[in-house]
Amino acid sequence: MQKGIIKLEAPPSIIAASSVVGQKEFEGPLGSCFDLHDDKGTFNMDTWEKSESEMQRLALNLALSKCNLKSEDIDLLFAGDLLNQCISSAYGLVNFKIPFFGLFGACSTCSEGLTLASMVLSGGMANRCAVVTSSHNCSAERQFRNPIEYGGQRTPTAQWTVTGSGAFILSAYPQGPFITEVLPGRAVDSNIDDPNNMGAAMAPAAIDTLMRFFNETKTSPSDYNAIITGDLGSEGSAILREFLKTDGYDITQNHNDCGLLIYDCESQDTHAGGSGCGCSAVVLASHLLPRMNRGELDDILFISTGALMNPSSVSQGNTIIGIAHLVHISNTNNKGLKFNGNTN
Amino acid sequence: MQKGIIKLEAPPSIIAASSVVGQKEFEGPLGSCFDLHDDKGTFNMDTWEKSESEMQRLALNLALSKCNLKSEDIDLLFAGDLLNQCISSAYGLVNFKIPFFGLFGACSTCSEGLTLASMVLSGGMANRCAVVTSSHNCSAERQFRNPIEYGGQRTPTAQWTVTGSGAFILSAYPQGPFITEVLPGRAVDSNIDDPNNMGAAMAPAAIDTLMRFFNETKTSPSDYNAIITGDLGSEGSAILREFLKTDGYDITQNHNDCGLLIYDCESQDTHAGGSGCGCSAVVLASHLLPRMNRGELDDILFISTGALMNPSSVSQGNTIIGIAHLVHISNTNNKGLKFNGNTN
Repeated sequence: MQKGIIKLEAPPSIIAASSVVGQKEFEGPLGSCFDLHDDKGTFNMDTWEKSESEMQRLALNLALSKCNLKSEDIDLLFAGDLLNQCISSAYGLVNFKIPFFGLFGACSTCSEGLTLASMVLSGGMANRCAVVTSSHNCSAERQFRNPIEYGGQRTPTAQWTVTGSGAFILSAYPQGPFITEVLPGRAVDSNIDDPNNMGAAMAPAAIDTLMRFFNETKTSPSDYNAIITGDLGSEGSAILREFLKTDGYDITQNHNDCGLLIYDCESQDTHAGGSGCGCSAVVLASHLLPRMNRGELDDILFISTGALMNPSSVSQGNTIIGIAHLVHISNTNNKGLKFNGNTN
Repeated sequence: MQKGIIKLEAPPSIIAASSVVGQKEFEGPLGSCFDLHDDKGTFNMDTWEKSESEMQRLALNLALSKCNLKSEDIDLLFAGDLLNQCISSAYGLVNFKIPFFGLFGACSTCSEGLTLASMVLSGGMANRCAVVTSSHNCSAERQFRNPIEYGGQRTPTAQWTVTGSGAFILSAYPQGPFITEVLPGRAVDSNIDDPNNMGAAMAPAAIDTLMRFFNETKTSPSDYNAIITGDLGSEGSAILREFLKTDGYDITQNHNDCGLLIYDCESQDTHAGGSGCGCSAVVLASHLLPRMNRGELDDILFISTGALMNPSSVSQGNTIIGIAHLVHISNTNNKGLKFNGNTN
């Protein structure tokens, strides 16, 4: 059997996080928590793809500034996004000149990056790493669906790609909050072929990851303050909760989803909720980590979820593959060292 | 200053490698070295994208078979390709059910994957990892340029995307050949904007990586049996050799490029040479590692090179970003343990 959970002997700390979003995200329930927003969503660029790159640049700059570090202080950079060939990350981050690992995990990229960075830091192969992801509603719409000017109708199960970028600085030095263990996700194909129902395609991957986690740790959902998935939205979240309950794990009391936290779906007309590489990243950066810093949350499971597909694969009759990487974040490390909050 | 070279305290071993290619690669100078080929390049699939996925599936199956392992014996899988949203990797490898990290490093993905897998293994966070990459001439042509039926003319500096997939099994147990150190590459923008001259766009990244490596190790090119870049082709290789020579590092005696090794460029009409995520992977698997196994090479630097761009980024006036990750492979590990070749 594959090694599942990877316990980090030297749990790295998330020492800074930043979030940059668009207007719709600013108008949502977490609006005031985000660091920066642009009401036009262009970030002063002349194409949406360049706007998305600019968000990544701003997010990493800000995260570095929050912990008083320069790009030369960062050993390795892990980044990815939804655009073809991950161009937002490449163009947005090239000028930082930090050794760069490009990732593609679709909307799971945030926890994929945190997982890889944590392993490298815990293994003593770097002192500090950065993780950056992004998505932009307008660049994603025209690439995966239609240009926004087309004004296509959206189905009830469709989600709204978040305009946002989150950046995280991780350090090997114990400071907290700590990433204490990770569980890399497996690609899961559950025969879902509706590209307007990503929640249903990703839920089986989240179920696979969480079932493996609870079975292996012999813990139960109530052992954690919060279990936060990436962007299952209302549809995928309902599937996740129901399936886990059938298997004896009731997460209804402490589960939430970044795609549901970021918008008031009804008044903001985002249908099943938010999605995109930026979704879980900006919610972690602006909402979850600050709550850990304030001691309102001590111990959370963070599981970004991704759908591995493209318009060609769907038109060629392929089903949509889901993936979900789990990151366990705690204010206490494996030596009993307790993080009491910081001012970042 | 960033941590550059990462010395692996417990150097992992590449215990098996496999290569699956198309007809043109089979007809090239290394033809008889490849494990499997399909003369139509379809691999019995009805779309080129599915053919590419099938190559990845065949390659990983074969690599596992060569070392008598099953997919459950592999802890982590690192994979990537050139297609939008890396669908070749996702669909080709989903049924192995191995925890999966999707990568996008363009044609640098092979050494990106080897780098990440090596760090995780050396850090004791896994026992065995697999790395798989691929490219397919027909899927790449229609995505990046035109469908092959269009018959567009190619410029002299253009390269030929390799149809091929390489898979590698890495183990934490000392067996050899060993990955003793890695140097993750930085994204480098040198203002090259010609998508038909990827060699020129990637050469500056290879120069950056090799200069950092030689400066930091205080070694010289002659200390290695071979310095093998990924797919700079004739154009990029000439730039690399000339620039390094100007800086005091003469690699002309022991440098070669996978893109030049894989084809007889003149008789096979591949212009500046081969390229693609599959290029460096199949040359490493079929030619370089077997030569290490036979003791013909003892110590090599392997540097896959990638161009981070897409057709939109070029049409929006962006230049092309290069990246090059270096992997140092040796028959001797840091404890003086010497690998004497195996029969895989």
